[in-house]
Amino acid sequence: MTRRVAVIGTGLIGASIGLGLRLHAWEVVGWDPSPNALVGADAVGALDHEASSPTDAMVGADLVVLAGPALAIIEQVASLDTPALVIDVAGVKAPIVTAAAPGARFVGTHPMAGREHAGPEHASAGLFRGATWVVTTDEVQEADLVAVENIVHDLGGIPVRMSANRHDTAVATVSHLPQLMALALVETASDDDDAMALAAGGFRDLTRIALSDPTMWADVLVANRLEVGEAVARIAARMDAWVGQLTDTERVRDQIGSAREVRQTLAPPIVAIRVILEDRPGSLAAVGRALSASRADVRDLQLRHGRHGGGGVLTLSVRPGEAEALRHALEDEHFEIV
Amino acid sequence: MTRRVAVIGTGLIGASIGLGLRLHAWEVVGWDPSPNALVGADAVGALDHEASSPTDAMVGADLVVLAGPALAIIEQVASLDTPALVIDVAGVKAPIVTAAAPGARFVGTHPMAGREHAGPEHASAGLFRGATWVVTTDEVQEADLVAVENIVHDLGGIPVRMSANRHDTAVATVSHLPQLMALALVETASDDDDAMALAAGGFRDLTRIALSDPTMWADVLVANRLEVGEAVARIAARMDAWVGQLTDTERVRDQIGSAREVRQTLAPPIVAIRVILEDRPGSLAAVGRALSASRADVRDLQLRHGRHGGGGVLTLSVRPGEAEALRHALEDEHFEIV
Repeated sequence: MTRRVAVIGTGLIGASIGLGLRLHAWEVVGWDPSPNALVGADAVGALDHEASSPTDAMVGADLVVLAGPALAIIEQVASLDTPALVIDVAGVKAPIVTAAAPGARFVGTHPMAGREHAGPEHASAGLFRGATWVVTTDEVQEADLVAVENIVHDLGGIPVRMSANRHDTAVATVSHLPQLMALALVETASDDDDAMALAAGGFRDLTRIALSDPTMWADVLVANRLEVGEAVARIAARMDAWVGQLTDTERVRDQIGSAREVRQTLAPPIVAIRVILEDRPGSLAAVGRALSASRADVRDLQLRHGRHGGGGVLTLSVRPGEAEALRHALEDEHFEIV
Repeated sequence: MTRRVAVIGTGLIGASIGLGLRLHAWEVVGWDPSPNALVGADAVGALDHEASSPTDAMVGADLVVLAGPALAIIEQVASLDTPALVIDVAGVKAPIVTAAAPGARFVGTHPMAGREHAGPEHASAGLFRGATWVVTTDEVQEADLVAVENIVHDLGGIPVRMSANRHDTAVATVSHLPQLMALALVETASDDDDAMALAAGGFRDLTRIALSDPTMWADVLVANRLEVGEAVARIAARMDAWVGQLTDTERVRDQIGSAREVRQTLAPPIVAIRVILEDRPGSLAAVGRALSASRADVRDLQLRHGRHGGGGVLTLSVRPGEAEALRHALEDEHFEIV
């Protein structure tokens, strides 16, 4: 029997879930308050049917996915009236889990994936590949949890169980705080033309997430404002402490070294190999041949171009055990390794 | 006649300069207080000769490159006694330019390039390709400025003239402040295991620079501590203002939108094309063929892997005018564009 899912909110995440579930033989019914978003999701193939209302969409659904902005979801979960399993995908969890109607089969979730571009036209069934996907455990039946975890697996994500409060504290630090820092950093730099002119890799890295969707982020930051406020207070205190000791070079050095060790625990042990990429046809094809020949599994690829076009430096990151074979294969293709 | 350069400090930057200048027929003499760094620079081919002291290195030099930590350079420039043109490459400029001996032909510079890994063994003549390289103009003869700019060009960098004070204020905002933010963010997250477990793309982006060399950064942050302190105060005030208005969703949305517009001015107008990369030999070679066929100039490449190996999503960023041709070429190679 075909399983039926109602996707309420067919933006980037909702439409990507629709695309992914259709690949697993779900029948997908979508609704969005924006006709453009609904038509857009249909256009990319994320939907089997467009519904005329949320209630209409949920008729006969086995699963309901609430994928609108966080503040909309808080209202929706309060009035849930369906026997279906219901999940949401917002970046804040406690205000949503708390608001859920008693008796609803509701599981709060949060896929740690996204992109800088919002809207169903950027949707992709591959969006969640390899992404951590939090599944909150508050007042949930084990069978429903397992069902949600299976859906996450089907979509390519990696489910991680956590309470809603733990999630909100953790993402305040690793997601909402970085977002605020990026926004504040962009604002600070924008007051200084020379600063913007010198904005190099580090600044770009720190502020890339400032390109994300304002509506989604406004809701999440507002919904999690207490945790975000505490995280900002913690980081401000840390930064003050740093500034206060900037006369003691030895101590600063030690403390930078300690932070580096912590950060290193995050980075998988990979080796970066850099090759000079000349501006001629076939250069990247030759890289492809070297990768095939060495059977190396590339974990990351980065290309830095000269400003005036033409070639650049390509960084290939692989596991240490594969580096030597890849180096040889690249040399066989006459690449200069730098 | 062969030109001779003395490189004082043969770590990542000094050795990379040595490698680059040797390609332009300079004779490179190196010295470093660390015998390991000196031998290491020689081992990667950055040097023609190892000197026994800074004085020894500078004998007969046309150019001296001071490439040690900032605090060491401040001492070195105070006692300069050479007719040669002298430059430094530290990330702070006013304390160094101010300390330079009167009468010395000294030009302060700062290549905005580096990597997370320090030491001459990571050196590369390609390190500066396409990188902005600040050349400070304080009390410098035009002829010396031009000579330095030519050297920067030879090394692949893009020279940008600026006063030392303007440089220090600008990098406090776009380089030193991000560094401190990354360090403080890592420390804050490290207190929370769940936070570290949920650390996704945004957090990794913001904290990658926390992997950089502690000695170099300690010196730079200490030497520029007044500007850094002011930058921290500015960002703390901005973040407080953000937290204070996190009850007003509309306003937060507008302000995120404004910051996004500023950040968009930094990003070159590029289009990201995502393809599903299957785990089979020749996949990347096929990407290379599509790139050759479309003649698209790739500005950025990123590969995100599934956790369990095997394929992933490859993002190719190109100029808008080239996107359509690349999409067609990728489809001709049977790639799924997502």
